[in-house]
Amino acid sequence: MSDPVFTFTLHATDGAARRGTVSTLHGDIRTPAFMPVGTAGTVKGLYLDQVRETGADIILGNVYHLMLRPGAEEVAALGGLHKFIGWDGPILTDSGGFQIMSLAKLRKVKEQGASFQSHLDGRRHELTPERSMEIQRLLGSDIQMQLDECLLYPHTEKDAERAMELSLRWAERSRRAFGNQPGRGNFGIVQGGVTPHLRRRSAEGLVAIGFEGYAIGGLAVGEGQALMLSTIAETIPYLPADRPRYLMGVGTPEDILESVARGIDMFDCVMPTRSGRHGQAFTRFGKVNLRNAKHAADPRPLDPESACPALARYSRAYLHHLVKSGELLGMMLLSWANIAYYQELMQGIRAAIEAGRFADFAAATKDQWRRGEDTLD
Amino acid sequence: MSDPVFTFTLHATDGAARRGTVSTLHGDIRTPAFMPVGTAGTVKGLYLDQVRETGADIILGNVYHLMLRPGAEEVAALGGLHKFIGWDGPILTDSGGFQIMSLAKLRKVKEQGASFQSHLDGRRHELTPERSMEIQRLLGSDIQMQLDECLLYPHTEKDAERAMELSLRWAERSRRAFGNQPGRGNFGIVQGGVTPHLRRRSAEGLVAIGFEGYAIGGLAVGEGQALMLSTIAETIPYLPADRPRYLMGVGTPEDILESVARGIDMFDCVMPTRSGRHGQAFTRFGKVNLRNAKHAADPRPLDPESACPALARYSRAYLHHLVKSGELLGMMLLSWANIAYYQELMQGIRAAIEAGRFADFAAATKDQWRRGEDTLD
Repeated sequence: MSDPVFTFTLHATDGAARRGTVSTLHGDIRTPAFMPVGTAGTVKGLYLDQVRETGADIILGNVYHLMLRPGAEEVAALGGLHKFIGWDGPILTDSGGFQIMSLAKLRKVKEQGASFQSHLDGRRHELTPERSMEIQRLLGSDIQMQLDECLLYPHTEKDAERAMELSLRWAERSRRAFGNQPGRGNFGIVQGGVTPHLRRRSAEGLVAIGFEGYAIGGLAVGEGQALMLSTIAETIPYLPADRPRYLMGVGTPEDILESVARGIDMFDCVMPTRSGRHGQAFTRFGKVNLRNAKHAADPRPLDPESACPALARYSRAYLHHLVKSGELLGMMLLSWANIAYYQELMQGIRAAIEAGRFADFAAATKDQWRRGEDTLD
Repeated sequence: MSDPVFTFTLHATDGAARRGTVSTLHGDIRTPAFMPVGTAGTVKGLYLDQVRETGADIILGNVYHLMLRPGAEEVAALGGLHKFIGWDGPILTDSGGFQIMSLAKLRKVKEQGASFQSHLDGRRHELTPERSMEIQRLLGSDIQMQLDECLLYPHTEKDAERAMELSLRWAERSRRAFGNQPGRGNFGIVQGGVTPHLRRRSAEGLVAIGFEGYAIGGLAVGEGQALMLSTIAETIPYLPADRPRYLMGVGTPEDILESVARGIDMFDCVMPTRSGRHGQAFTRFGKVNLRNAKHAADPRPLDPESACPALARYSRAYLHHLVKSGELLGMMLLSWANIAYYQELMQGIRAAIEAGRFADFAAATKDQWRRGEDTLD
């Protein structure tokens, strides 16, 4: 048998929207894809069998969390992340950059890398581009992200430029450290804040290095949807059509529709599981806050036509009761329902692009969200 | 079709241990049975499909919790407890007595009934024997318990006598209120602390009233295992052989083995789910505290031969990681594993009684617990 090869195949386009397949050592990813976030080796509140059954092809793991606990060498000694958590499909790991910015304490970013204090026990850690790649190799991820420097919004253009240039130098070092891993891919991350010419320079710099895929980082950090979407639109033209494009950490179902319309292929976000733990469901009929007393006597499920039992089989009254009572099952069911709805949405998006009717699909989907449950009896 | 009838059939005895079947409107219960506790309409951390698959025939619901939230009339309006939670097998509801003693505030017990403050919102509630039966009828439970007065240990013999006499008068009122509910059963509860002659008077009084089954209440409240077991042994002779005997709120796997040996048929306890939420597993090899660092690099599952994935498929290292990280999946897996082990134990007990080798089974089981994981490679 020949070596496995990491590939991206484009099957169809519809406007800027793309329907493709990313092939990895651990299997195929149908794009546009939503990747449930398995932060510390678990998609919070779900069995991985459920994640698979919702139609997710790939899940995400966080280098920051896994390096702190249980540790990359420890996971490697147990056979790698796939075996450790019991998931045989593709896994993408981020590089740690975003969490160092958002979770760690006393962080310092120097040319060599980032140093920071763990949010768990205050111990000091170093993360260089080379170490991030080493960790991802130890974990055995199928898609490995370069280390980048993320900024929260707002920031000055000067800061954005400095962080972008540093991320570009780290990109080169990451690429060198990634080496040759058949069937696995290394993605560069476009930075540059909301300044189009910085985004362009970042994208062109990354393309000159050459990656299996390109991510857009540093968005959905406070800039608002309009600025996020315009930044995506300004960036996409500088990314090669024959490589997957991954919008990191995004977003709401509407963010996803809008970003697919602009040419994004891959997404991840904690929103479906985090919202689920807080009593909120995403459905075909829009957002439903199960804490609301109006659901207390409502025998209807969230979506009787869904293939997911969490959406189709449990009454709003019961979900309301579980949420109000702080029961684990409430968090489990709503996290499951949300991951299922996100995957249903992606399946709808993929089918619509294939059929050349993505714009209609997006309009009808948004219309259904607006009209809410009125169409449900 | 004729009316469904609540029956108890004894298939085999082995010493004082009994193998039987309780038949109810919603199906059969193989005894000795362990009933997972679904306090507020959910067995904490498990899907009811999982509960069923572990081999549980019946689950328990708590009148106290359900009357406060969502409310008995509210559940009835939604089609009853079975429909509300999605469980089509038998359900036993307790009467509220135990929780009023252990959870409620400012409780007052009078001849008429108990009044207390909700632990949720401080609102004042009344619970009489008649209202408890009405609530259980509204919920639609298959086995409905009389309201009793529970005492914590230690207490004076005089208090035990007073509470026992009151419980006996409440038993009569409960029985009258239960009325005629084909296929459903009403159980009386033996009280009397740890004083044999009080237990005897209580049992004889209940038998004179006549119930479909008899529970032993007021144990495992601080008196210790030896006194619990001797009290059971002193009580059993005054309970009719042709009715099921239910030991309320008990207990550890060892408590169960010892109590079956003395003639108990039914058990319930929060221990498997509560311990699971706190990182502790019950297994064939004894108790395992997954928080312990010795599991961090251990690739072995809790029990490779178990039919339950939670016991057979996940490494101790992964379970340790999940528990240390406070992940929902850790609580879910260990609660599931514990319910599964309890049901495996009950299945072993039933098979052993049928085969007339219960004493051997109990000795071998206890020996395996003592030897721990040494036999597991």
